[in-house]
Amino acid sequence: MAKRIGKRTIIFDNKPYIIGYGSVVGKKEFEGPLGHEFDAHDDDSRFGKDSYEKAESSLQKIALETAMRKANVNENDINMIFAGDLLNQCIGSYFGLREKGIPLIGLYGACSTMTLGLSLASIMIDSGAADTAAAITSSHFCSAERQYRFPLEYGAVRPQTAQWTVTGSGATILSHKECKGKPYINAVCFGEITDLGVIDANNMGAAMAPSAASTIKHFLKDTKTTLHDYDLIMTGDLGKVGSDLLYELLESEGIDIRCRHSDCGLIIFDREKQDVHSGGSGCGCSAAVLNSFVMHRFESGDFNNILFMSTGALMSPTSSMQGETIPGISHLVNIKI
Amino acid sequence: MAKRIGKRTIIFDNKPYIIGYGSVVGKKEFEGPLGHEFDAHDDDSRFGKDSYEKAESSLQKIALETAMRKANVNENDINMIFAGDLLNQCIGSYFGLREKGIPLIGLYGACSTMTLGLSLASIMIDSGAADTAAAITSSHFCSAERQYRFPLEYGAVRPQTAQWTVTGSGATILSHKECKGKPYINAVCFGEITDLGVIDANNMGAAMAPSAASTIKHFLKDTKTTLHDYDLIMTGDLGKVGSDLLYELLESEGIDIRCRHSDCGLIIFDREKQDVHSGGSGCGCSAAVLNSFVMHRFESGDFNNILFMSTGALMSPTSSMQGETIPGISHLVNIKI
Repeated sequence: MAKRIGKRTIIFDNKPYIIGYGSVVGKKEFEGPLGHEFDAHDDDSRFGKDSYEKAESSLQKIALETAMRKANVNENDINMIFAGDLLNQCIGSYFGLREKGIPLIGLYGACSTMTLGLSLASIMIDSGAADTAAAITSSHFCSAERQYRFPLEYGAVRPQTAQWTVTGSGATILSHKECKGKPYINAVCFGEITDLGVIDANNMGAAMAPSAASTIKHFLKDTKTTLHDYDLIMTGDLGKVGSDLLYELLESEGIDIRCRHSDCGLIIFDREKQDVHSGGSGCGCSAAVLNSFVMHRFESGDFNNILFMSTGALMSPTSSMQGETIPGISHLVNIKI
Repeated sequence: MAKRIGKRTIIFDNKPYIIGYGSVVGKKEFEGPLGHEFDAHDDDSRFGKDSYEKAESSLQKIALETAMRKANVNENDINMIFAGDLLNQCIGSYFGLREKGIPLIGLYGACSTMTLGLSLASIMIDSGAADTAAAITSSHFCSAERQYRFPLEYGAVRPQTAQWTVTGSGATILSHKECKGKPYINAVCFGEITDLGVIDANNMGAAMAPSAASTIKHFLKDTKTTLHDYDLIMTGDLGKVGSDLLYELLESEGIDIRCRHSDCGLIIFDREKQDVHSGGSGCGCSAAVLNSFVMHRFESGDFNNILFMSTGALMSPTSSMQGETIPGISHLVNIKI
């Protein structure tokens, strides 16, 4: 049985073990500091397809198949997939996974989707609803630019607070079987919507930071733990602007995470050389980093107990045109080995 | 503990009881055959807002608050909400529910979202992850037309196979407490993507019918039950074209559901008088009908054991423009009293 502690945290009796993971990225991500960590990449980010949307679907397919291969499972073994992406109507996920013949749960959590899916998949495993479940998300720079901002051909100039949508996907496969020596999900904390009134769609980090701060605070309070209990607190894609804001917000509550914090959006690119301004973003960012760099650190013994959080900015071009603010939401998973 | 039986079905040990429900619709739905069943309506379908997207957010807020009032719970009692809608980036849900301070799980399942959310909420209750959880979806004719087809002002002509997106929302609140005399979710069956190659975005019923047939077949097989065990099999929004196709598909497998089938899209409007062509659609359709007509029939003793299924067509204007087919997905809940 899952046990709810405090307001938002759920801790598991039957720990869901991570038995497989896969990551795939585009050219720019492969050329970044984590390039050697990813399972696959493509040199023109089209993955042999004639549209970027179809390329994004391919990303999901490749990530899932890589994770399945590592987990040594096939389509019949997986009871359900939790999937989502940034494209309207989540076509990246639905079209990428449609041939698998596996019950599919479509999610939309903006860039918070990887940990949203992992959290739900974990509860399914713990509850007995699934023996094996997968979580997967993706984003693609070119499909996101066209949908959210401008077609690439316009050559629009981006402000320094803007982030660069990661072309990438990551998939994680969880199992109910106890697998000694493999990492597992110990607890999860679901996000609430936090809205401090940010309206600048070119400053997603600022929109997401308050929700990340809220989720960290709630989780520590719910579990009666402190930062010192964890090797690292890793956020999804706050970038430089959002990470600095997160430090400020938590410091005002007496929590200093500077020495224990890392952000997927800050480590996936070299901000000096790769012209990505505030850092990487997109729900493929935390998905690709989790299912490569983070998992490798668990395997090497560098990580034993971390908090991993994907962070999402809730908006659409329509909501922004109608003058709405950009609320944020962040879901957290506590991964241990 | 949840018990998975067969490939896709999950049956509950701790039954999630329906302790509250709420429905709200627009003018046309209020004027339809079920008008008197709904809790609330608005005469110009704008709900006092200056955009149809904001009106859709209001629909969700009203439906949830109505359900909360009937369930006699407040924001602090609800552990999580499962919400989704048809708008890009699910802004109907996220903006409608942002002030509630309740952990929010955003879903995208096209018109299958109501039973997708109910299924997940049920597992949360059964597993102990939540004591009280809500599921909610919405759609709005005007926001959907602009986003998926044409702005209303164009006066585009619709073919007879087309359906009319319901302006409406429905919310259901589930509790882990045994409530004698109230309906409960006995089992759920998650959908797989079914793609028979339909490409006509004006014939969603045909795109969804194969997935509805697949889910019914799987559920009956998994549970070793027959149609005669249920008072009714109710689909979400297949409309006339999709319902006829569902009969054909199931008949070819020796299953005749004609006498036990109803479709929310067929009963919410008067097809003769209301010019809705093949019937109602949108994820607000099954949500509003479930949380009014269906719940009232359980209260009156007309229903004791039904299969309720929301049916979704997976596409976006972009995927259709790129020549993609329209796959379908249908999730089922078995409601008993």
